[in-house]
Amino acid sequence: MVARYERIAAELRDDILRGIHPVGSTLPTDAELAARYSAARGTVRQALSVLVAEGLVGSRQGARRIVLGTSRSQSFAELHSFAQWAGVNGYRFGGEVVRQRRRPPSPAEAERLTTGEVLEVLRLRTLEGEPVMLERTVYAAWIAPAVEGLPADCASVTQALYESTGLVFAYGEHLIDAVAAGSQDARLLGVRRGSPLLRQRRVTTTQEGRPVESSDDRYRAGSVAFSIRNSIGANPLVRQAGDLRFGV
Amino acid sequence: MVARYERIAAELRDDILRGIHPVGSTLPTDAELAARYSAARGTVRQALSVLVAEGLVGSRQGARRIVLGTSRSQSFAELHSFAQWAGVNGYRFGGEVVRQRRRPPSPAEAERLTTGEVLEVLRLRTLEGEPVMLERTVYAAWIAPAVEGLPADCASVTQALYESTGLVFAYGEHLIDAVAAGSQDARLLGVRRGSPLLRQRRVTTTQEGRPVESSDDRYRAGSVAFSIRNSIGANPLVRQAGDLRFGV
Repeated sequence: MVARYERIAAELRDDILRGIHPVGSTLPTDAELAARYSAARGTVRQALSVLVAEGLVGSRQGARRIVLGTSRSQSFAELHSFAQWAGVNGYRFGGEVVRQRRRPPSPAEAERLTTGEVLEVLRLRTLEGEPVMLERTVYAAWIAPAVEGLPADCASVTQALYESTGLVFAYGEHLIDAVAAGSQDARLLGVRRGSPLLRQRRVTTTQEGRPVESSDDRYRAGSVAFSIRNSIGANPLVRQAGDLRFGV
Repeated sequence: MVARYERIAAELRDDILRGIHPVGSTLPTDAELAARYSAARGTVRQALSVLVAEGLVGSRQGARRIVLGTSRSQSFAELHSFAQWAGVNGYRFGGEVVRQRRRPPSPAEAERLTTGEVLEVLRLRTLEGEPVMLERTVYAAWIAPAVEGLPADCASVTQALYESTGLVFAYGEHLIDAVAAGSQDARLLGVRRGSPLLRQRRVTTTQEGRPVESSDDRYRAGSVAFSIRNSIGANPLVRQAGDLRFGV
């Protein structure tokens, strides 16, 4: 269920992205927006704080709020699902399971995911016929049978799991860095060993916070970038020291 | 000035990070929080929507909100300033200007930053005495004189500019990907040409939306990672096709 303030935020976001409120312009006052959406002023303020957090709208300066950006944001589903992202953007895409096996969880996986046997799946993703991403996903025991029921060339796992089990991915934690291609990466992605890959490690949970999967996705350099806006009022991006240790 | 709801969000965030509200626990109701903070219920809801956007708290399920995460978030200043980040985390850090020059802006810079002459600065950043990041920053004409007034080994440019001009960086747009080290990268960072680097390109503006700088930061693989949380209710992270063209 989407809350009332989230619907208002979505409408305002659309208006900004369509240029109805161009960059640098002032939004209507909270009172005007409340009247327009027949909503309480507090609900409108909640909606606006979502847009402030996204960096589309500035924090209030007196009674005024300024439109700061117009880049299209992306739904959680579109970020999570390679297939949905590729489809929305008009790319030909594909996915194929290279290897799949059940195994006991590592200690870290047991803590993060599940104590039961996990399902490890190695998938190669293509865009316009080119291999662009290698996805190593470990599924929690409870969802493993549903994943095993999918065809090996299933283009959208997210969509297929939703259709077969009603599963909705709701929260994610992502860690983004750069790594050198290992020999399996190099062979499957068609790049030289040691060449740069963009790595996105993530853990995804249901609405109730139940872990579904952890994944290590590696993109060929140049194929994909991640973008994000932040502000002094809300910064979702965190820099952290990587795997190198600095003697501290 | 920090809004009332932002202060409440900061206190709740602290309580979550300190384990007063552990992961999986239920937060007090909006009415209880309103009483505790002597604030209107709408203000409390605004504060909560910031924490929902950060992924620390789940969207409301009936009257309940669940605590989803406890990772420490980072202030905008800490993300923006390499020195502040390194200092907070207890690392020895340094920075040195390798080259600095005025030049006319490229067409893209003229559009993004300023039409006047820009200041291009190449800086090498160290952590625990090791070179870890190469920063290529282009400053808008209006701030260039203040940057030229800084010593070449200025450890925190952000702090020095705040002290000399009152400048506060307030909004950022970031593009994160992986690239192969070029010959200048390789020489200054002490890595092999072609080895993986984590690249963060960004444009930063003042509170009024005035562009200050655009930068291309390249980190040695393994030295730094970026982390982020997202949710079905608020996704600040966007995946986009990179520099490669896929024939569409």
